[in-house]
Amino acid sequence: MTIGKKSWAIAEGYLPPAGPNAGDRTLRSHETASILNANDRDTEVRITIFFSDREPAGPYRVQVGARRTLHLRFDDLREPEPVPRGVDYASLIESDLPVVVQHTRLDAREQGFKLMSTLAYAGAD
Amino acid sequence: MTIGKKSWAIAEGYLPPAGPNAGDRTLRSHETASILNANDRDTEVRITIFFSDREPAGPYRVQVGARRTLHLRFDDLREPEPVPRGVDYASLIESDLPVVVQHTRLDAREQGFKLMSTLAYAGAD
Amino acid sequence: MTIGKKSWAIAEGYLPPAGPNAGDRTLRSHETASILNANDRDTEVRITIFFSDREPAGPYRVQVGARRTLHLRFDDLREPEPVPRGVDYASLIESDLPVVVQHTRLDAREQGFKLMSTLAYAGAD
Amino acid sequence: MTIGKKSWAIAEGYLPPAGPNAGDRTLRSHETASILNANDRDTEVRITIFFSDREPAGPYRVQVGARRTLHLRFDDLREPEPVPRGVDYASLIESDLPVVVQHTRLDAREQGFKLMSTLAYAGAD
Repeated sequence: MTIGKKSWAIAEGYLPPAGPNAGDRTLRSHETASILNANDRDTEVRITIFFSDREPAGPYRVQVGARRTLHLRFDDLREPEPVPRGVDYASLIESDLPVVVQHTRLDAREQGFKLMSTLAYAGAD
Repeated sequence: MTIGKKSWAIAEGYLPPAGPNAGDRTLRSHETASILNANDRDTEVRITIFFSDREPAGPYRVQVGARRTLHLRFDDLREPEPVPRGVDYASLIESDLPVVVQHTRLDAREQGFKLMSTLAYAGAD
Repeated sequence: MTIGKKSWAIAEGYLPPAGPNAGDRTLRSHETASILNANDRDTEVRITIFFSDREPAGPYRVQVGARRTLHLRFDDLREPEPVPRGVDYASLIESDLPVVVQHTRLDAREQGFKLMSTLAYAGAD
Repeated sequence: MTIGKKSWAIAEGYLPPAGPNAGDRTLRSHETASILNANDRDTEVRITIFFSDREPAGPYRVQVGARRTLHLRFDDLREPEPVPRGVDYASLIESDLPVVVQHTRLDAREQGFKLMSTLAYAGAD
């Protein structure tokens, strides 16, 4: 079963300050690109990060196994550079095989975290 | 009136710990795939759950009646196995007839639950 | 300028109990279908409400003026019958002219309301 | 790499009262249209604001640089007129080059802000 597209974009990116839960990986502020690879083969995914006032960063490269999902946290990206907190960004996600991408933010700047989520934008392939 | 597609995907799946409202079905942490079957015939829907580190589970099978909606809770799935809490997953939803699918999470880990919702991704059929 | 489609669906519908803010129209629990009619002519919109265990209600009929938006609250629907609170539903929205539809819920069951929003599903026309 | 469409719509627009954080630009109530221009050329974007009871305002004009994202706050729009708070609106976003648009609201009417986000609706171009 194949479902999805090979290119996706998330226009709204923002890593809030880590907040009072900074010591708890699950509950500190973060954003996730959840990627579903429903194919029977592994795929390589390349992420490019766009900013408001400088050239893009990346590509960041991750592997998503056959019949696996990867909930990729943007605050885990390290190579070629970390994604800064408190800065507007956007992302382009390109995959060798069709995948499905959903964007989620957990904002823990204040006590009582907040959640938002949306389907990413699927390109035309 | 027919509206929808026969295949859908939700890349972001996560059942948070049930939380302090665990005794209240409505307010404990859960995720829902809301399915609308606007057709004049019943449809069978098959759900496959994908994980980050193991082979998929399912298919789970549910019926959605003609001209009915089913707000399917992932924490109600039992056969072939329950969906574990605290684990990243994703889902593929396939139906005999066109349907529409929306994804919602109620996160009640902390006092004061949180909500997020998005349209699922519609496959090409 | 025309943008949109003539048929839309929202699979996730639920009017939570009005909550402690029940006396404040803006802050009591509600759901909205925001409709944009960017055309140069008025359009009639028909809403059908689907349930989990009974035949659909409707059509509810509303007018959206040329170059206007209508943020339609489901708890304002009266004819042919009100939408009950605390019940799962879904909606089909059909328009004479192309429109754009977005779904939003404000949940005020507890102190500190919650928000969620998503683009509705656009049919093939 | 080009991804996106030249016309987008956000049917749900509402700027809540600024709230108790009114003095903090980041945390007072606002809405954002996040725009990604992944093209190798700058693009001009024109925003038209639709209301429930009057003719549209705009177009508002902004530039988005090549390989840049602009997280445009609706409460920053000034020419030809500010977007009023506490009023239902919707927006049409047109660009010379393909872009991707996502809609986010931060609602800070009460203590403890709320977030919601969704992909905007992509027109047919």
